[in-house]
Amino acid sequence: MGGDIGPDVTVPAALDVIRRTKDVELVLVGREEDVTERLGDDAPRDRVQVENATEVVGMDESAAQALRSKKDSSMRVAINQVKSGRADACVSAGNTGALMATARFVLRTLPGIDRPAIATALPRASGHVYVLDLGANVDVPAEILFQFGIMGATLVRSLTDNDRPTVGLLNVGVEDIKGNDTIRQASELFRASDLNYTGFVEGDDIFNGTVDVIVCDGFSGNVALKTSEGLAQMISKVLREEFNRNLFTKLAGAVSIPVLRSLRRRMDHRRYNGASLVGLKGTVVKSHGGTDIMGFSRAIDVAVAEVRNDVVRQLEQALGPATEPAGT
Amino acid sequence: MGGDIGPDVTVPAALDVIRRTKDVELVLVGREEDVTERLGDDAPRDRVQVENATEVVGMDESAAQALRSKKDSSMRVAINQVKSGRADACVSAGNTGALMATARFVLRTLPGIDRPAIATALPRASGHVYVLDLGANVDVPAEILFQFGIMGATLVRSLTDNDRPTVGLLNVGVEDIKGNDTIRQASELFRASDLNYTGFVEGDDIFNGTVDVIVCDGFSGNVALKTSEGLAQMISKVLREEFNRNLFTKLAGAVSIPVLRSLRRRMDHRRYNGASLVGLKGTVVKSHGGTDIMGFSRAIDVAVAEVRNDVVRQLEQALGPATEPAGT
Repeated sequence: MGGDIGPDVTVPAALDVIRRTKDVELVLVGREEDVTERLGDDAPRDRVQVENATEVVGMDESAAQALRSKKDSSMRVAINQVKSGRADACVSAGNTGALMATARFVLRTLPGIDRPAIATALPRASGHVYVLDLGANVDVPAEILFQFGIMGATLVRSLTDNDRPTVGLLNVGVEDIKGNDTIRQASELFRASDLNYTGFVEGDDIFNGTVDVIVCDGFSGNVALKTSEGLAQMISKVLREEFNRNLFTKLAGAVSIPVLRSLRRRMDHRRYNGASLVGLKGTVVKSHGGTDIMGFSRAIDVAVAEVRNDVVRQLEQALGPATEPAGT
Repeated sequence: MGGDIGPDVTVPAALDVIRRTKDVELVLVGREEDVTERLGDDAPRDRVQVENATEVVGMDESAAQALRSKKDSSMRVAINQVKSGRADACVSAGNTGALMATARFVLRTLPGIDRPAIATALPRASGHVYVLDLGANVDVPAEILFQFGIMGATLVRSLTDNDRPTVGLLNVGVEDIKGNDTIRQASELFRASDLNYTGFVEGDDIFNGTVDVIVCDGFSGNVALKTSEGLAQMISKVLREEFNRNLFTKLAGAVSIPVLRSLRRRMDHRRYNGASLVGLKGTVVKSHGGTDIMGFSRAIDVAVAEVRNDVVRQLEQALGPATEPAGT
């Protein structure tokens, strides 16, 4: 119940999920009085429970600090619920670094995983692509990029009906000689695996390509994601300006309202809110810190889908054989 | 006259520049008969000369290979023209790696510059931002990122009326603890300098921010640039789809033609074609390999502006003091 948004957004989002589903139960973790007050009297209390947490991790607090000194933060208490088995998943709009560090510390990583990654589905003109890592790991060696590929492909296999997702490795060109040693070594690992690896892809393949999974380090993944957010905002600003230029363009804008609404709906980043922290022994979903009710409710949907499709167990199975030493 | 586009694009683009300017003279380098044929009879031959070059560097050829074996490529001959002083600048739509390697080999870098960078202006809702490096340097140490900052600020000072451009360093968050050692070290160098450094910026600051110069390594710069190209293509595809959905939306599209045309014009990447190879002892501009006549003509404009504003000498002056050992 932390993050930039707080219970004014998260509680109504939780109630929205309760309304839209039949069997989802939610544990709302935060300052009890804040949460209860916003729940209202007609919330179905058999499906919505409240768990008190007295602290909040600040958005600019370091992960180490949060881990050390905020033992009763809503984030920590929520992840503890997953650890203890009381909850199947944790959804948070809080500080990403602290969420990842706390989740790693409390839940631990799956066998064979050195570092969890942040993965999300991004829209295309048709369909979507899963991209990871989006910011958890700044410097990423080849073996870890390869692990990201296994996790990304498993996410797609578990959550969609695509049994053999294609995987591409983000680079600054598609030729074999492009990039640095790390990226070329990672490419060799992919080629030698039984993943459906298609080779290097470039930035334009994220929104305009055909592969199902794009693997990158967290630095370039984060840059790609945020750059596209900035561009989308700029285009929408320019569209607004152009339709407001004069009486004629305003008329055109009025006539185009259904089209622009439909465009906005398809491009709406809230529909893609909810990034998965993959590689943990538990389901943790990170919501954008500045989202709204619809966006946070969508992040809860992502967690529900992962639990229903048993993503953590599927990841465990996918990673299993790769971790056994050859010949055993 | 190489690249994916060839003389069918570059020659008409050259003639367009001749028509639009009074004093620009062009040397067209390529297979003489190909160029002459496309020039036609009424080209003002006092302002357009042709220089024969028998070879072409392939778009997938390695830089080393091009440098070693293509001594008579159009790219090499064109750069030689700059070296000999016959031309003030070279514009090429060819293989970026080969262009950079050949330009470094023939022209050499400016004193105090370890590695040249690729810089370009990108559009914003109002104004624009210079971003570098866009792909010449994949792994970039802190000192080199700092050099990019000096070069970016000098470009803006030379080419615009902004005397004190703000400079930001691309990172995965704006807090001091974000990123890796390299990026934090670079930030210290910027803080200690007399550049107008504003700190870390994120991907969304490229299209939706306020700093005048954004410094990054060539990997993330290239990813940011190509991701935004892909997103822009996707949005334009989706817009087309939405306006073509039914009779009513087609009508709305017809009414909105002036608005959409104006949007397209403002977002048109051809208007931003022409990236500068900065840090060389000479002006070299790289055009997008798949551009058209308008785009290539715009890349020539970029080169003309750099020559008119004496960018190379300004860079030399800006870099000068920084290279002297302390205490001398």
